[in-house]
Parts: sequence; C-alpha cells; structure tokens
Amino acid sequence: LQALASHPAARGLEDDAAVLDVGGKQLVLTHDMIFEGVHFLPSDPPGDVAWKLLAVNLSDLAAKGAQPIGALLGYSLGSESWDTAFVEGLREALAVFDLPLLGGDTVSVPEGAPRAFGLTAIGEAEKTVPSRKGARSGDQLWVSGCIGDAGAGLRIARGEAGPAELLERYRRPSPRVAAGQALAPLASAMMDVSDGLLIDGARLGAASNAALLIDLDSLPLSDAYAAMAGVGRAARLAAATAGDDYELLFTAAPNVAAAIAHIASTLGLRLTRIGAVGYGSGLALSDAGGVVPLPDRLGYEHIGPSNSCS
Amino acid sequence: LQALASHPAARGLEDDAAVLDVGGKQLVLTHDMIFEGVHFLPSDPPGDVAWKLLAVNLSDLAAKGAQPIGALLGYSLGSESWDTAFVEGLREALAVFDLPLLGGDTVSVPEGAPRAFGLTAIGEAEKTVPSRKGARSGDQLWVSGCIGDAGAGLRIARGEAGPAELLERYRRPSPRVAAGQALAPLASAMMDVSDGLLIDGARLGAASNAALLIDLDSLPLSDAYAAMAGVGRAARLAAATAGDDYELLFTAAPNVAAAIAHIASTLGLRLTRIGAVGYGSGLALSDAGGVVPLPDRLGYEHIGPSNSCS
Repeated sequence: LQALASHPAARGLEDDAAVLDVGGKQLVLTHDMIFEGVHFLPSDPPGDVAWKLLAVNLSDLAAKGAQPIGALLGYSLGSESWDTAFVEGLREALAVFDLPLLGGDTVSVPEGAPRAFGLTAIGEAEKTVPSRKGARSGDQLWVSGCIGDAGAGLRIARGEAGPAELLERYRRPSPRVAAGQALAPLASAMMDVSDGLLIDGARLGAASNAALLIDLDSLPLSDAYAAMAGVGRAARLAAATAGDDYELLFTAAPNVAAAIAHIASTLGLRLTRIGAVGYGSGLALSDAGGVVPLPDRLGYEHIGPSNSCS
Repeated sequence: LQALASHPAARGLEDDAAVLDVGGKQLVLTHDMIFEGVHFLPSDPPGDVAWKLLAVNLSDLAAKGAQPIGALLGYSLGSESWDTAFVEGLREALAVFDLPLLGGDTVSVPEGAPRAFGLTAIGEAEKTVPSRKGARSGDQLWVSGCIGDAGAGLRIARGEAGPAELLERYRRPSPRVAAGQALAPLASAMMDVSDGLLIDGARLGAASNAALLIDLDSLPLSDAYAAMAGVGRAARLAAATAGDDYELLFTAAPNVAAAIAHIASTLGLRLTRIGAVGYGSGLALSDAGGVVPLPDRLGYEHIGPSNSCS
C-alpha cells in the first residue's frame, strides 16, 4: 500500500494524517478502523467505543494542528440495544468535540461477524502543518497532559483495583485539539502518543533523523497514577511504554519555551519538557540515577503503515 | 444517526455524499464499507473487489459533479495471496481513475472474521453541486450508459451463461466521473444508479417532491444485454430493477437537451432521455403497450440512511 501512496499529500503513509491543499487551505484527513475483539471487547460499554473511535481520529487531527470540521462513519449494525447505546455515546462525543457528522455508511453484517467500524475525520489547518520529520538537534522535547493514565486504566478495565478516573482516561480519551492548533506554529515536529511514549518518540526521532533524549524523572504523572502505580523508575517505565494516552508529543526550539508555557496556562493543560533532541539517532533514557536501559518493549507494535493508529 | 447528522453539509444523509465548503471550494466526501459475505463473496477475485470498492465511491462523487482528489482506505489484513491480489487490483483502479491514495488504516482481524474494508473518497466540485432534490415538473429524465448490464453480469457470476463483457460490467463498473462534471451545471437533480433504476428513480422523485414518468421502451440496453435477456417488457423491467449499474440518473430542463447531446458525443458516452418529471409524486412506467404496472420489487432495498450505497 505504501508503494501506491506516492502522492505528496499521503506523506508516504508515515505521518498521522494526509494533508491536502484545497483552495489554499490545508485539508487534513485521517481514517481509522476498529474491530471487535481487536480494538475493543464485546463487553466494553458501546458508548465508550463510540467516544474512542471519534477521539483517536481527532487526536490525529490535533497532531497536525487542524480544526476538525466533520466526520464520516462506517457502521456495521448489530443488536438494537448495542447500537442505541453506541449512537448515544456518539451523540455525546460529537457534542463535546463540536463535530458535525457528515455522512457515511451503515451495513448489516452476517450473524456472528465481529463488529467493525471506520471513522474518517476531516480537519482544516493553517499553512504550518507539523509532521514527524522536523525535529532538530537542540530542540526541546515536550508532551501534553499526563502519561500512563490510560495504560493504568486498561489494567483497571481488566480487573485490577485503581482510581475510576484512570479507567475514564482509558475509555474516554481527550484529544488535544485546541493545544494542537496553538502549538502547530511553534512545534518543529509533532505527533500524538497512541502506542506508548517511548515507541512513538522513537518513531518521531527516526522520521527526523535525530536522537531523542528523554528524562524519565520529568515524565508528567497524574496523582491518580502515582497513587496506583507509584513514581519510581519501574512506574515511570510502565507509563512510558503504555498506549492509548492520545497526548501530543512535540519538539520545539528553546526560544519558544515561554510561548509554550503561556499556551499551557491559557488552556489549563500541562505541557511538560521531558527531554531534548540530539545529533545521531535512537532513543536514550535517563533519570537521577543515570542512564536507564531501554526496556525490551517500547510500546504497542502494529503491522501496516504507521499512519494507522489502530 | 440521521438525527445526529444535523449539519447542512450532511444533507440529512439523504444524498449520495456530504458537501462541505472549504476555502471557497465545495468538498465532496463519501464513505462506503464492504463486508465479505455481504457485498462480495470469498470466491470473488480480490482485484475486482478492490476495483469495485473504489468505483462505487467514485460513482457517488460523479453524481455530485466532483473531481476526485484522493482516497483513504481502511483495510483488514487476511491471507498474503489475497491481500497481494487486492493491492494489485487497487493499483490498477487508482491508475485508471488517476486517484491518489492518501492514507488510511490497516488492521489485523481475528481468525475467521469476514474481511471488511472501508473507503473514503474526497472530491472537489464547482459551485453547482447537484442533489437529488432539484427535479421540477417539465424537466426531462436522463440516464447515462446502459442499464441492466451489471444485473445480467451478476447472473453470469452466479453460473448462468452470458457474454463476458456483462460479467466485466458487474465486476468492474465505470464510474461516470467526467460525465458527472460536465452534466453538473445542467442537471436540476442527479444521483447514481446503484440499487436499480426504478428504486433510485423513486428516491429522486421523492426527494424532489415530484412524480417520475419513465418510458420503458427508451431504456438504453446494450447489445450484449439484448442478446442474453432480450428486449421485451420483462427484459426491460429486469434491467430497470437490477442494481450495480453505477450510471448517472439526472433531470434537466428541456432547453439544455442539445447541450446534453453534445456532452454525450464529446465523451463518447450514451446519454438517453428515458422519461420526464411531472407534478405529484410516485413513479409511473409506460411502454408502447400503455401503462406498465410497477413490479413488486423496484430494486435493492437497504437499511440505513440512503447516502450509504452498500
């Protein structure tokens, strides 16, 4: 498929979204599919599945600094009660994200087939659309929000004890749309953290031909996460390798750090410096104890082109 | 879902596609999903499945007079040989339709789950974007190409004897993109015929609050269709109620008939007057023998909003 996607707007399928020039505007397009049994469980609340389907696509738009302008939904019909609950969750999410549902497709599937949904989100961006490629040695590395909450929430969904707000962070992620738009003109590279901070950071570094140096001690952890998992090195590594955060990971020149801090206070959203971009390649971790060996598993690995966030 | 799609661009989910104003351009968006066992059979040639997925979406754009500018693909991975053949068919179709693949998503699905694909097609249109709603009493009713070929092709796919070109018309439909663009400024209403001429005609009439009068004798039948099915009333009713034609059905004022004939000769595509728009509502059929009773079944009936072409 990568060989077929030769148009510049496809960005070699190596970015979070396609970027197309339409009438002088940058149109940002992303499409994700989710399958029952792969991306969600039959027992998951249908309204949360709807929320997440929308949120993960909006997170891709946020990483491009795009203002979402609409969505198309591909929906496989199942039982009436499940479908009704899904639509209710979709209604909530569309309202919260102020997003028009523009169209799509509904289909009946054979008895016993897993549910499968697709969502296309369309956004409009200003001239500066960040990619994963622009990080330069000397830039600072930043992340929005808190890291690890969704991973802890997944453990709670699987039966561990823990704060309900972490479960909520897993089931109903908040795409950082406003932050993405505010940061786009300042960021040299930006992407969303969907598979884990370390693996996504490694991808950003590789796309930019640069090394990424991450200070584990500066990782933003929520109080709820700290209460459940602690704040030691193991807890920080667990947070940095868990997926589903849908926070923004971005790099920027040091001279815009004050502007970034201003955006954080304006939006009431944590934006935390967690490292730096260096010459060379690869990922290096450190904390107060010195160099931290990279864990074997940096996050979720997927097949297929990296602009799939499945 | 219809209740959620309240944005004017969604056209109440009652049109073939959503139409969004972006930077002064009309952006036309459509998304269809296809499932193995519903829209195609496991035994269908994978390359034809890819072709058809692209073609049915481009046909929706054609009905809006839009120039296709890109596609996003949602793809569930199966066996390597099937996937390779699918991608080969996709490559062919993208080349023939001169369409960039911009992005999308690939996912692994559980063993035994039916394949499911989604395609979003994006097009750009001039100011005049026809809908199903504009037909007025006194307009003439037109259709492109030949009607019934794909339906006959489906019968061949199921084992009947018949000309190979009809099978090809079923498996590899030709979306009428150039015709759609040329006709858009002239048509008072336009849609594509995907479920059957009669049922889609009834939808156009209902959307326009008008009656549609169709002269069965004027139905354009191909020589191949005539050779396989004949040209009598039964053959014409069969053609008019079979799906998958992906031709354009449109209405226009009588004073643009010469301009329409000119487009037909320029494009080398049959454009045939098959009836008229009248006051009132409903569909009326006639032929040289007089009024023809409507058949019980006008075409394929689908669940869900009508801008799904599944």
